[in-house]
Amino acid sequence: MNERDALRALAADLPHAGDDAAVVGDTVITTDMLHERTDFPPGTTRYTAGWRAVGASLSDVAAMGARATAAVAVYADAAFDEEKLDRFVAGAVDVCEAVDAEYVGGDLDTHDEFTTASTAVGDATDAGVVTRSGARPGDALCVTGEWGRSAAALRLFKRETDEAGDGEAVERANDLFRFTPRVADGLTLADRATAMMDSSDGLARSLHQLAEASEVGFALDPERLPVHPAVDAVAEGPADRFELAAHFGEDFELVCAVPEEAIEPAREACPGGLTRVGRVVDAGDGVTADGEPLPDRGYTHGSE
Amino acid sequence: MNERDALRALAADLPHAGDDAAVVGDTVITTDMLHERTDFPPGTTRYTAGWRAVGASLSDVAAMGARATAAVAVYADAAFDEEKLDRFVAGAVDVCEAVDAEYVGGDLDTHDEFTTASTAVGDATDAGVVTRSGARPGDALCVTGEWGRSAAALRLFKRETDEAGDGEAVERANDLFRFTPRVADGLTLADRATAMMDSSDGLARSLHQLAEASEVGFALDPERLPVHPAVDAVAEGPADRFELAAHFGEDFELVCAVPEEAIEPAREACPGGLTRVGRVVDAGDGVTADGEPLPDRGYTHGSE
Repeated sequence: MNERDALRALAADLPHAGDDAAVVGDTVITTDMLHERTDFPPGTTRYTAGWRAVGASLSDVAAMGARATAAVAVYADAAFDEEKLDRFVAGAVDVCEAVDAEYVGGDLDTHDEFTTASTAVGDATDAGVVTRSGARPGDALCVTGEWGRSAAALRLFKRETDEAGDGEAVERANDLFRFTPRVADGLTLADRATAMMDSSDGLARSLHQLAEASEVGFALDPERLPVHPAVDAVAEGPADRFELAAHFGEDFELVCAVPEEAIEPAREACPGGLTRVGRVVDAGDGVTADGEPLPDRGYTHGSE
Repeated sequence: MNERDALRALAADLPHAGDDAAVVGDTVITTDMLHERTDFPPGTTRYTAGWRAVGASLSDVAAMGARATAAVAVYADAAFDEEKLDRFVAGAVDVCEAVDAEYVGGDLDTHDEFTTASTAVGDATDAGVVTRSGARPGDALCVTGEWGRSAAALRLFKRETDEAGDGEAVERANDLFRFTPRVADGLTLADRATAMMDSSDGLARSLHQLAEASEVGFALDPERLPVHPAVDAVAEGPADRFELAAHFGEDFELVCAVPEEAIEPAREACPGGLTRVGRVVDAGDGVTADGEPLPDRGYTHGSE
């Protein structure tokens, strides 16, 4: 069973599974584990790791259209190096500050491999939470931010490792890896979007997940997808560029369905930018890019 | 740096570190990581692991005198076995139900070693939260429940492994490992205890931590400590019996300071039982058992 099948099995048992975060009363809660081998390529600083680990959970709160209030993290490593731990905590504190939440500590554990588990909580607004299941044919398909930054970062990390560079690529990669969780954008979209999720598994897979939950299809216009400038610097041609922007994932942008009349006010209010990249269609029309089927393919733990 | 020193370093940076759970507004939040090698001895079922992992976090909410509302957990293993995952979730669901909280899912990850990270959240009552820092000389030292059950479980697990038994010992060990988080007791004590924590690191270490936070000492009367009957079945004499009950830890009972006049009503209202085991004394008198210094010794990750 790979992770995706296992998550499906879990979802069948739990009333709240299946969205980016669970909802209990007005509280939204979400947790994620990341570890060195698969999530922090060589060159990732502990500051970036702290930012990214906690940021991933804050992004899930954002995807529900909730206000992020607090985060905690477990830091597990083979040995406790005070400098590394301090930098991890600094990254966690700073990403929380970036979205007006508070980092309030966590737990330490001994583990062969550097591993983190972060949890974020948030409060639903009066608009309620946005789930994955409300998109309607006719809505516009919109995304926040620019795509492919994590994929570009990975190429830069790899370049540094392969070519023993001067550290500039790795610094740039760390910058790219420190995304801003779209909490402010999610709050703006809370009473406007009909369905929403974050793009941890990539745009293509997110569209398939939204399509399944909402029982709709999506027609993506790839030309409209805002691609991060860093992708152009590392991509090997147009097909690779689209692969990095739409399949790699881990960009932690928001993907949502927005009714026509709400697009303009939402765009003006989203600090991370909001771009219309396609439309919601009938389920029978499937998920397409430029009219061709868009494969449900991304990054899956457990299938590697 | 061992885990304890690392936690001290963390506490210096974070306003909310140092208690069993962090407090943000009226919300209490806590997280813990457990892994197979150090926390789940051979023979521990996945059901017990789910119960225990989530129970440990619920116990931290209990220690703050807060109402546990929800828990999430990360389940990481080398492969996703549906039966094992189902049993883990069942244990997590059941321990939440035992304290009127809701298990709302979590995350999955691939990891060489079976690892869990659980997070629980709760709501502070109108009485506010109980921290480790309010104990006053003259208060009674009280504990919930019976002590040494996890130590006894570990001996039973080991007996099964060493002697290839018929499985009865391991079943009994699993039962002992599934403690009831003292949430109801914590709520009862919320407006009565002057300081409180749970006993994850054992009674001795808990007393030293409460003593440091409250700037007091404790005089423990070992004769009064309620020892779980399972300890008598495995202990090798009185010294070993005290070692298992007071130093081993992981019993997840509550340790608290209670003013004289509040003891009787608290005792009547605590479903897990409340026993007076000593008194709060001046800081200069230190932490003693039967008048002798009680060593600040327990179970510390990272120093093994």
